Amino acid sequence: MKAEELARRVRAGERVALARAITLVESRRADHERRAGELLQAVLPATGSAMRVGISGPPGAGKSTLIDQLGVNLIGAGHRPAVLAVDPSSTRSGGSILGDKTRMARLAAEPAAFIRPTPSAGRLGGVAARSREAILLCEAAGHDIVIVETVGAGQSEAEVADMVDTFLFLAQPGAGDELQGLKRGALELADIIAVTKADGDTAGAADRSAAELTAALQLLQPGAAGWRPPVLTVSALTNRGLDALWAAVLRHAAAMGEAGAFAERRAEQRVRWMHQLIEDKLRELLLAAPGMGRRLAELEGEVRKGSLSPRLAADRALAREPVEITHGA
Amino acid sequence: MKAEELARRVRAGERVALARAITLVESRRADHERRAGELLQAVLPATGSAMRVGISGPPGAGKSTLIDQLGVNLIGAGHRPAVLAVDPSSTRSGGSILGDKTRMARLAAEPAAFIRPTPSAGRLGGVAARSREAILLCEAAGHDIVIVETVGAGQSEAEVADMVDTFLFLAQPGAGDELQGLKRGALELADIIAVTKADGDTAGAADRSAAELTAALQLLQPGAAGWRPPVLTVSALTNRGLDALWAAVLRHAAAMGEAGAFAERRAEQRVRWMHQLIEDKLRELLLAAPGMGRRLAELEGEVRKGSLSPRLAADRALAREPVEITHGA
Repeated sequence: MKAEELARRVRAGERVALARAITLVESRRADHERRAGELLQAVLPATGSAMRVGISGPPGAGKSTLIDQLGVNLIGAGHRPAVLAVDPSSTRSGGSILGDKTRMARLAAEPAAFIRPTPSAGRLGGVAARSREAILLCEAAGHDIVIVETVGAGQSEAEVADMVDTFLFLAQPGAGDELQGLKRGALELADIIAVTKADGDTAGAADRSAAELTAALQLLQPGAAGWRPPVLTVSALTNRGLDALWAAVLRHAAAMGEAGAFAERRAEQRVRWMHQLIEDKLRELLLAAPGMGRRLAELEGEVRKGSLSPRLAADRALAREPVEITHGA
Repeated sequence: MKAEELARRVRAGERVALARAITLVESRRADHERRAGELLQAVLPATGSAMRVGISGPPGAGKSTLIDQLGVNLIGAGHRPAVLAVDPSSTRSGGSILGDKTRMARLAAEPAAFIRPTPSAGRLGGVAARSREAILLCEAAGHDIVIVETVGAGQSEAEVADMVDTFLFLAQPGAGDELQGLKRGALELADIIAVTKADGDTAGAADRSAAELTAALQLLQPGAAGWRPPVLTVSALTNRGLDALWAAVLRHAAAMGEAGAFAERRAEQRVRWMHQLIEDKLRELLLAAPGMGRRLAELEGEVRKGSLSPRLAADRALAREPVEITHGA
């Protein structure tokens, strides 16, 4: 299908076209890449209108259950949420489709919702770039809320934070000095923190955890527009606190919008993304030079051992034999 | 002076040679770069033996005063500390030499100490790379402790954390929910936190701040080797707590060493550094293409406005006209 035709169908809200479009932007085949570029440019005017919300948290915090219930609530309020998963450590392939849809069973059954499973991992500079473009495609397809879920392995949290407007962190209830599973770095990125499982036996622990987290956050400087991350308690099981959670997301977006920080954040994200893509491409071109993969591995080995300085290794990577990096139009 | 001769003098502990060597690695002149590469390779066997300690904290936390007193203590114990400053936001030029030496007046007067002022800013990918190499040169010159100080603007804290063994964060005393100036991200990077000014009127506030920070850190997962950042109180004025602070640095290094995490951390740092240098060089080569600076600025403008997708912009940056990036040996 031509890029223009695919763009038209995506914008008409055809689910199959949206899924296909995301597959296209995920592809690294040269002809697919060209079509993907055309597709993205064609849908560009229809993008940017959704609220983009990142959600992370440790395994077992109840991300899927929360997103399932939150998504159902949002549909009840007339929204059309899309859910994208980012999991760079994932080795799942085809099976993940079923996996993600099972994890969010009620949302998956809703015609207004779109759930995109984790893309396969391990490609160069890939996961974040593809997820950013998947967000745009979801917006073009009329989804007014895009939720990007990440398991928080490695750099993925920072990458997701850099593609959303509001980043929500889930914490588990844990009494006293027990671990709540908050990774170092979580407090840095979070715009909102929600302690999950505020129900039944764990309700009290959730309240105590929220109080402790609130105290901890008081020690940090506020973020952009003077925003201080609120700490809420939620129960996906009983649906308690989820309306308040969404209200906090809206409050955050409004605060950013008033301060002009919202548009600026998105513009900065796009520019960083462009530079990231240029870097990825340059590295790809470098690696395409004959024998370069092996040479880099050898140099890396010497640098790791300490027998070669990183500077000389970098020089040799690029210059031991004249390297020609040419990229035609 | 030839690189070999300069290397010999650096290793002989000649201060002037060390200062000159650092100036050489800071230079971006092509012939200087080649000599710097030779110099670094020549001193490589004499590097790696120092404790590398990063120190950051908000303006006013008393970084200089603390480093001054700590340095004097270390010299008293037979050490030869070097202090490097990283300040990417600095626009100071020659004046910084006096500035840094005035800030640490007692240490500057010690023959066993070496203080290197902030390098001038604004060069491509420069500050971190140069500081990493300055650390190596200080080690080759026999400094067994290298302190890297940063003001914590932008990315500099993360960069400094990636070039040291132990990262120390200073916080100011502040009662209750007052701000202690801790930036978001500080808790992520810190191996040790010290609340300063634990003397006179602010002694009580320092204790309370330390207790609050301790509670906050309990909520986070421990770092490598199960290390939990301790929170100490110090007074540079009365020298109280500085021995305990250094003991914590040694404890951290020992814990990392026992877990094998110390050597691994340095090896990973070197490899990341090599890749960073390759990226910097590729970007430099790209920018050296005729008209590329202007073209990138135009594309960035369009991406910022939202009229061009980042993917197409990246493609055009590299491919609108055939771009040839050639780097001879």
